[in-house]
Amino acid sequence: MNSLEESVLQGNRLALARLLTQVENDTADGRAALDSLFPHTGKAHLIGVTGAPGTGKSSLVNQLALYLRKDGRRVAIVAVDPSSPFTGGAVLGDRVRMKDLSGDPGVFIRSMASRGSIGGLAQATANIAQVFDAAGFNVILIETVGAGQSEVDIARLAHTTLVVEAPGLGDDIQAIKAGILEIADIIVVNKADRPGVENTEKALKTMLELAHPVPRVFVHHGTLFQLQSNSVSLAGESRPKGVDEDGWIPPLQRTVATDGTGIAELAQHIVRHREHLHRSGDWTVRDRLRLESELEAVLQSELMNRFRGRVSGDQFDEVMNRLFERRLSPLEAARVLMNGGPA
Amino acid sequence: MNSLEESVLQGNRLALARLLTQVENDTADGRAALDSLFPHTGKAHLIGVTGAPGTGKSSLVNQLALYLRKDGRRVAIVAVDPSSPFTGGAVLGDRVRMKDLSGDPGVFIRSMASRGSIGGLAQATANIAQVFDAAGFNVILIETVGAGQSEVDIARLAHTTLVVEAPGLGDDIQAIKAGILEIADIIVVNKADRPGVENTEKALKTMLELAHPVPRVFVHHGTLFQLQSNSVSLAGESRPKGVDEDGWIPPLQRTVATDGTGIAELAQHIVRHREHLHRSGDWTVRDRLRLESELEAVLQSELMNRFRGRVSGDQFDEVMNRLFERRLSPLEAARVLMNGGPA
Repeated sequence: MNSLEESVLQGNRLALARLLTQVENDTADGRAALDSLFPHTGKAHLIGVTGAPGTGKSSLVNQLALYLRKDGRRVAIVAVDPSSPFTGGAVLGDRVRMKDLSGDPGVFIRSMASRGSIGGLAQATANIAQVFDAAGFNVILIETVGAGQSEVDIARLAHTTLVVEAPGLGDDIQAIKAGILEIADIIVVNKADRPGVENTEKALKTMLELAHPVPRVFVHHGTLFQLQSNSVSLAGESRPKGVDEDGWIPPLQRTVATDGTGIAELAQHIVRHREHLHRSGDWTVRDRLRLESELEAVLQSELMNRFRGRVSGDQFDEVMNRLFERRLSPLEAARVLMNGGPA
Repeated sequence: MNSLEESVLQGNRLALARLLTQVENDTADGRAALDSLFPHTGKAHLIGVTGAPGTGKSSLVNQLALYLRKDGRRVAIVAVDPSSPFTGGAVLGDRVRMKDLSGDPGVFIRSMASRGSIGGLAQATANIAQVFDAAGFNVILIETVGAGQSEVDIARLAHTTLVVEAPGLGDDIQAIKAGILEIADIIVVNKADRPGVENTEKALKTMLELAHPVPRVFVHHGTLFQLQSNSVSLAGESRPKGVDEDGWIPPLQRTVATDGTGIAELAQHIVRHREHLHRSGDWTVRDRLRLESELEAVLQSELMNRFRGRVSGDQFDEVMNRLFERRLSPLEAARVLMNGGPA
């Protein structure tokens, strides 16, 4: 472990910021740091906060962070949302609100660039969360926009997932909810001072009753092939005894993030969910599921790196030309390259 | 080529539906069909249609398809949007509207399940589009929800990308636009009969002026490593002569999809953009870029498959346990598996 990593473990913010940049840019130093910090991870409570644009989830994350600070907990925010004020693309009011947190040494905000490859973003987010975890942050809030599959995938790897809704976003937005509700541990109806909040709640309750939530339990990987699938099968024998099979019913909490209404109650739901996870064994299950998914991602990129070292630019160009002329299909082109390049 | 593939080439709809299912499920037959149909691809105009929920882009896609049919063109719709009526999660009104297309033999609608792995969805969409291309569809409309990175990535691989906006979706939605505008070839302000349309247009024009659009040109792959990056560098020497360097300024078109207002004009913009692509050489550039990205995706999954064949379930379980106990980091675990499993 080098001095930068030691400084991070000792709580040095400047070192943390530098290391996060290394990790986000996937440098050799960043990778080495992830390895040496990894034994220090596994303690933080990862909370995904997802919801459509317009639900005010950034303000909610902000208020939640402020509230958790009062309990003395150290809070990190990872914003993976192009519409978030933390990532820069936002209206002035949000930027001002964000300042509530900026002077507090127990809060650290990191925004992720949402460009780059799809898988890359999920992996970078996981890595950033790992650094915060090792650096001793007790709670890591991961804010994502809930409309895209990649963002949902990021959020569903958290211990606790908050799905944020709001009244008055139109019928089309309603339609998106059914899928996202499945991943919700807690449902937040933000902007609850707006007209239509009763209708929004009623619709959500109906959808909740209709939804058959996919049990998010331990992937049974008797064989490695099942890793590829996102479907999760119940591994009865790995489930600890005394587990309440369907013990958690996602509560629905009204909030008005702009004036703090409902934030204390929301924080209580989060504490209750964490206790539920520990009691039921689901904490361990989700932790393992997340690590398995990270291993998969790292394997993919390492296999690709090793492959790239074996193929020359000329070989690649020639195969690419044949592909472009439709003389090879993508699969055929891949196999030619994997078998050592064109004859 | 087997009889199913021949039937698809001859325009048999039932055969097409069966083949699409094979391809979406990534069966051995589906993969073989992609290979044998590939020489017949490269003719269709791929049009990505992306926008936030609430912009009415499904109705727009519907109207556009109806309009293009009048010109005698065969139109396929691929819906990759959890809020789309084509994918099933929609309000009744949309379902009714969708029936406009259902009796027309020149139209084929395919909705993609938005579950499954992130990369998998993009790849499956590309494969489905390839089948439609080989089956002789002239235009392929790919509808995605524009808030997530994965959907944006799917849309940006099209020849022409439409970004759909609408008045009155709230400030937060405004914020999302800046990033998405960069990928727009044509901007559509749908629901233009709503109040606030002037403000929406004004905001879009300001953002367009501020935006520095990333030139979407040929990836220069002197070396294979650059494939990994999503950044696109200008390969001056591969750019055909006579190209207007910055010849396309994304037009802004008002529409009211529900009554057809502006659809003819929008179709004209699409034709003009296709002509621009051919004239400038960008058609070839985008085609090549898309194939390169597909090759990358296929390589990743083939490398992973080959790797899985080499590692046993026991080896994987043991490494996974060490990872879970934080005795190995994800990267270390991947390397242990790649070097033949635990000692």
